[in-house]
Amino acid sequence: MSFHVNRLLIAGVGLIGGSLAAALKQAGVVDEIVGLGRSRETLEQARSLGLIDRIAESPREAAQADVIVLAMPVAQTSSVLSGLAPHLHEKSIITDAGSTKSDVIAAARRALGKNFFCFVPGHPIAGAEKNGPQAARADLFSGRNVVLCPEADTDAEALTVVDLLWKSAGAQVSIMPAARHDQIFAAVSHLPHLAAFALVDDLAGRAEANDFFRFAASGFRDFTRIAGSSPEMWRDIALANREAILGELSTYMNKLGEIASALDKSDAAALESIFRRASEARRKWEKENK
Amino acid sequence: MSFHVNRLLIAGVGLIGGSLAAALKQAGVVDEIVGLGRSRETLEQARSLGLIDRIAESPREAAQADVIVLAMPVAQTSSVLSGLAPHLHEKSIITDAGSTKSDVIAAARRALGKNFFCFVPGHPIAGAEKNGPQAARADLFSGRNVVLCPEADTDAEALTVVDLLWKSAGAQVSIMPAARHDQIFAAVSHLPHLAAFALVDDLAGRAEANDFFRFAASGFRDFTRIAGSSPEMWRDIALANREAILGELSTYMNKLGEIASALDKSDAAALESIFRRASEARRKWEKENK
Repeated sequence: MSFHVNRLLIAGVGLIGGSLAAALKQAGVVDEIVGLGRSRETLEQARSLGLIDRIAESPREAAQADVIVLAMPVAQTSSVLSGLAPHLHEKSIITDAGSTKSDVIAAARRALGKNFFCFVPGHPIAGAEKNGPQAARADLFSGRNVVLCPEADTDAEALTVVDLLWKSAGAQVSIMPAARHDQIFAAVSHLPHLAAFALVDDLAGRAEANDFFRFAASGFRDFTRIAGSSPEMWRDIALANREAILGELSTYMNKLGEIASALDKSDAAALESIFRRASEARRKWEKENK
Repeated sequence: MSFHVNRLLIAGVGLIGGSLAAALKQAGVVDEIVGLGRSRETLEQARSLGLIDRIAESPREAAQADVIVLAMPVAQTSSVLSGLAPHLHEKSIITDAGSTKSDVIAAARRALGKNFFCFVPGHPIAGAEKNGPQAARADLFSGRNVVLCPEADTDAEALTVVDLLWKSAGAQVSIMPAARHDQIFAAVSHLPHLAAFALVDDLAGRAEANDFFRFAASGFRDFTRIAGSSPEMWRDIALANREAILGELSTYMNKLGEIASALDKSDAAALESIFRRASEARRKWEKENK
C-alpha cells in the first residue's frame, strides 16, 4: 500500500508545522500543502521558504483538506477547531501536535461534537528552542518519537493515516492512552521545565543575582537551558496538565527533602546511594539514547 | 616582571591537574613538572602524554617543588598535605583546585600548622565530565574563571604567584572570601547538581522507569546531564559545603512550593510571572556568557 495525501492543511506554520511540511514534501507523499494562521507575515514567509504551496483564505477553504494538522499554540485549539467544524467533509482527518493530550481531547470533543471520531490526538517529541518557519527543517522528526492517543471512538482509518503521515516524516510512532501520555510527560518534560524555571527565578530574585550568575558554568548552563523557554507556552502546559504535574512536583519535593534530611544528618552513605542510583540511571539512559 | 616557576608539583594528574600542566607547558612558564599520585598507572600515562616530566617517588622529594598544586579528589587533601608538611621549605607555595573552600582551608590549617601562610585556596571553574590524564587539554582554562580565597594570614607573595600561574594558563582570576565562594557555588553549582540527581533518582526508582525514560527528550537530556556526575565526588562536595547547600535546598523547595500552590489554584498570572522572570534572566545570562 502506498501512502499519499492530496491536500494537507497545516494550521500554524512555525517550527513544528513547517518542519512537518518540509519532511512530507521531501518524502513526496503530499500533493499540496495549504497553510492557515493568524499572522499573514508568517504565512507569507512559510510560502516563500517553500514550506507551503498556498495560504488558505478562510476556515471554509481550509476545511477542504484531506488531512488537517493543528500546529499552532495549544491555547488556540478550541477556536481553530470551532472555525473548521462546520465545513468539515465526511472524510476529513484532523490531528494535532500539542504537548498535553487530555485537555486537547476535551477541547476537540466540545468543538467537533459528533465529528470527534475524525480527530487523532498527537504529540511529536521534538525540540523547540527556535521558533517560526525559518527554523523549520525537514529532518526535525527523523528518528524522534511521536505519540498518538486515540480514544475509544477514534476512527481506525484516521489513526492509520496519521500514523503513516508521521512515519513518512521519519518519526517513530507510539500509541498510548492520553492519561498515560500526560503522566509520562509530566515526569520527563513538564517537571524538569518547572524545576529549571524555579531555580533560575530563585536566583534571579536575589539582590546579588549578578554576582551569582557570573560564576555559573557549564553545569548551570545545561541544567537551566529549558528555563529560557516561552513563559506563555509553559503557563498553558502547566495548567493543561495540572493534576499530573502537581503529583510530580510533590514526589520531586519529597525527594529533595530526602536529600536535605540526609545532608542535615551528614549521612554520607544515604547521599552517595541517591547520587549513585541517579548517576547510573542517567549514564544508562545516555548510552541507550545516543 | 616575567613569571617563571622552576619546578612545579602536581598532586593528582587527572583532567584538572593534567590540563594545568599542559597549559603551563604551552605557555612556557615552567621548567619542570613533577607528578605525584596514588596510581602509578595514571602517573605513567601522564608522563607518556608529556603532561609531566617525571614522577615524584616520595612526599619528601615532591615537597622540593617551588609551587605545589593539589588536584586530586578533595577528600585526600588532609593526607596529602600531612605527607608534604614535614618536608616543605621556606619558600614553598601550595594551592588547590577543590570545589569547596572553607573545608579545604580548615583541613590545610590542621595539616600545615604554622606553615599555613603558604597555602592559597583556589577553585578553577572548569567542566569535568571526562576524567583522567587522557582528557587533559591545554585550553581547558582558557577564558574560564578561577576563584582564589586567601585568608587574612595568607602570604601576599604566594597569592601573587598562584594568580600569575592561573593567568598563564589563560584563566580569569577572581579573589573573594571562602564563605562567599561557598555560598555562590552552593547556589549556581551544588544545588543544580543535587536537583538533577533528585529528579533522575525520583524517576529511576519507579516500576515504570523505562517507559518514562524512553520518551525523555532534549530538555531532559540537558537538565539531567549533571546527574551523570561522580556520586563520590558529589557526596564529598555536599558534605563539605553542607550548611550553604541546606540553605539553598530550602529556598529552592520554597520556590517549587510557590509554583505548586499557584498551579493548585490554577493561578495563570502567578505561573506566567515566575516563568517570565526566569526566562528573561536565563536569556540575559546566555547572551552575556556566550
